[in-house]
Amino acid sequence: MAFPWPDIGTPLADVLTPLPVIDEDRLAANIARTQAYMDAHRLSFRPHIKTHKIPAIARQQIAAGAIGLNCQKVTEAEVFADAGCDDILISYNIMGKDRLARLMALNDHVAKLHVVADSAVTVQGLSDAVGGGKPLLVLVECDTGAGRCGVQTPQAAAELAQQIHAAPGLVFDGLMTYPAPGGARAVEAFLRETMALLDGHGIACPTRSNGGSPDLFSAHLVPTATEHRAGTYVYNDRSMVRAGACGPDDLAMHVLATVVSRPTPQRVVLDAGSKALTSDLLGFADYGEIVSLPGARIVSLSEEHAVVDLSGCTAALPPVGAQVRIVPNHTCVVSNLFDRMVFHRDGVVTRVEKVAARGTVW
Amino acid sequence: MAFPWPDIGTPLADVLTPLPVIDEDRLAANIARTQAYMDAHRLSFRPHIKTHKIPAIARQQIAAGAIGLNCQKVTEAEVFADAGCDDILISYNIMGKDRLARLMALNDHVAKLHVVADSAVTVQGLSDAVGGGKPLLVLVECDTGAGRCGVQTPQAAAELAQQIHAAPGLVFDGLMTYPAPGGARAVEAFLRETMALLDGHGIACPTRSNGGSPDLFSAHLVPTATEHRAGTYVYNDRSMVRAGACGPDDLAMHVLATVVSRPTPQRVVLDAGSKALTSDLLGFADYGEIVSLPGARIVSLSEEHAVVDLSGCTAALPPVGAQVRIVPNHTCVVSNLFDRMVFHRDGVVTRVEKVAARGTVW
Repeated sequence: MAFPWPDIGTPLADVLTPLPVIDEDRLAANIARTQAYMDAHRLSFRPHIKTHKIPAIARQQIAAGAIGLNCQKVTEAEVFADAGCDDILISYNIMGKDRLARLMALNDHVAKLHVVADSAVTVQGLSDAVGGGKPLLVLVECDTGAGRCGVQTPQAAAELAQQIHAAPGLVFDGLMTYPAPGGARAVEAFLRETMALLDGHGIACPTRSNGGSPDLFSAHLVPTATEHRAGTYVYNDRSMVRAGACGPDDLAMHVLATVVSRPTPQRVVLDAGSKALTSDLLGFADYGEIVSLPGARIVSLSEEHAVVDLSGCTAALPPVGAQVRIVPNHTCVVSNLFDRMVFHRDGVVTRVEKVAARGTVW
Repeated sequence: MAFPWPDIGTPLADVLTPLPVIDEDRLAANIARTQAYMDAHRLSFRPHIKTHKIPAIARQQIAAGAIGLNCQKVTEAEVFADAGCDDILISYNIMGKDRLARLMALNDHVAKLHVVADSAVTVQGLSDAVGGGKPLLVLVECDTGAGRCGVQTPQAAAELAQQIHAAPGLVFDGLMTYPAPGGARAVEAFLRETMALLDGHGIACPTRSNGGSPDLFSAHLVPTATEHRAGTYVYNDRSMVRAGACGPDDLAMHVLATVVSRPTPQRVVLDAGSKALTSDLLGFADYGEIVSLPGARIVSLSEEHAVVDLSGCTAALPPVGAQVRIVPNHTCVVSNLFDRMVFHRDGVVTRVEKVAARGTVW
């Protein structure tokens, strides 16, 4: 039997839960506000599709002024290239024979495709894969303090840039970083120092791609960057409110859930478990915030259950069968759990979009 | 472009990562060993499909002697009913008009369908939905210490059983519990006391369904139970090894990943992030165990990256491009992230099964 996605026009009170839903007006406002900020600071904006994974939303972002898209994997980028996007950055070290072959097909298909590298192994693999084909634009990924991928120093960045510059089939096009929160000063210093070194070698560095969501509205503190990448802003979530990057009225995603049990006066159980909210804590002590139940805490999740401690709740306690709205800790990972996403305006379903890039981990 | 699922006969060394893979021989041995234990103790065994979500695996479990299946949601049960299973327990408080209508269609379709209830609201909803249709078998869900759903006392269980017994369209058929770890004694006491109360009311209680994976091989310590439910045993995972429910050689699922970066001598980054491993910690301090790198710790995950601290690693450090095998903390949630599951024997792909019940949260 088909999954019970709601029809357009359905009131949210009537949908089957658990269900993440997107407020159309807040979505549009988030896109407009962020693009206006980037425009005001003359920063190119490259939204990360990981938050929504939906071509129709990407088109809204590009229509608002985004220069292109940021993807993390080749299979993600394929989805958005097929949907017509002609400027994509895949911010990942891409390796493996089959994956590199698909990357090359993508490079032929997309007008402007960038990838990143942080090691000689990645550079060699990319160069070998290009062969005599269309040259590939490569950025050096720099670790400016986040402690994930990336070369560790401007000297190492300049050295790898020279290797890319010298590698057959590759075009060194600049630098990319995913910074630590509050890392603007470190990013600026790293970019400037690397550019000075490259300048000494006569190597141009036209693209300087900075990123990150919590510090989105501090992007102007890195004037050397030419573009900024961010994803979460489009829906926003509890982590973005905590970071001060949005307010409660900017939360476009809520997860609707139903009270399925009230075993004790102080405990209710919701039907939104880790298959709806994920286990991402992102530093929070519980698994999401229930809008209508201030002080209630989602203390544990199993796959299909959320156990809620009501002992600190200051609102009227919900009966079995009541629907509640949850602000998820992390919106991107919720998107990856559902085959489709339901949109609404004022609580009435407006559209149901396929989450086209769900599950694209390759 | 189609997703790059490997062909049968592909060596695992050549697959695109991240990819969970299932060892056919260990899978078969886990099914056989667990069924033999249940048979030896004359306990009916009802595997929970949440771990695999694949009809072909359910058929292996039933062929080995399982009496039927345990599902959590109506849409899950629909998948397995369509695949031919005629004895299903949905261990969930089912509510909502559309969902109840689908439940009734399922009840007509499946020879033996049980659901559970822990409140008068659930019972009323079920009874209303049956109308004049085929009677529905209902178990009372009992909280024997796990602190999730369930009535709190044998007295409350007996009272709800009487309500079910009296409700038009419903047949009270027994008790169900999902116990706390180490809770055998509490379960046995709760079941016995409730049955004594029911006996006083002249109400039969033919089904007593106990469950849980970590204590799987203690199921015989609850002699009053007529059946046991468990899911994780079929693949096993790090939490099952910790619980003593299996050894390392019983781990049928591994997540294959590739070293995509080695930014510092003591840090590597793998391509298995929370979209492959999930953020489920289950009480562990890190996000999985890397088989070939004893002492290495997966200290953080983002969606597409795992950051590994090698400072405690006693093995040779892996170069960029190397493939590693990860034992996930929790196997069930990994299954929910992938549209298909890849099986192998001795490292060669044997089959690729659709994860038919992936994403069925309703």
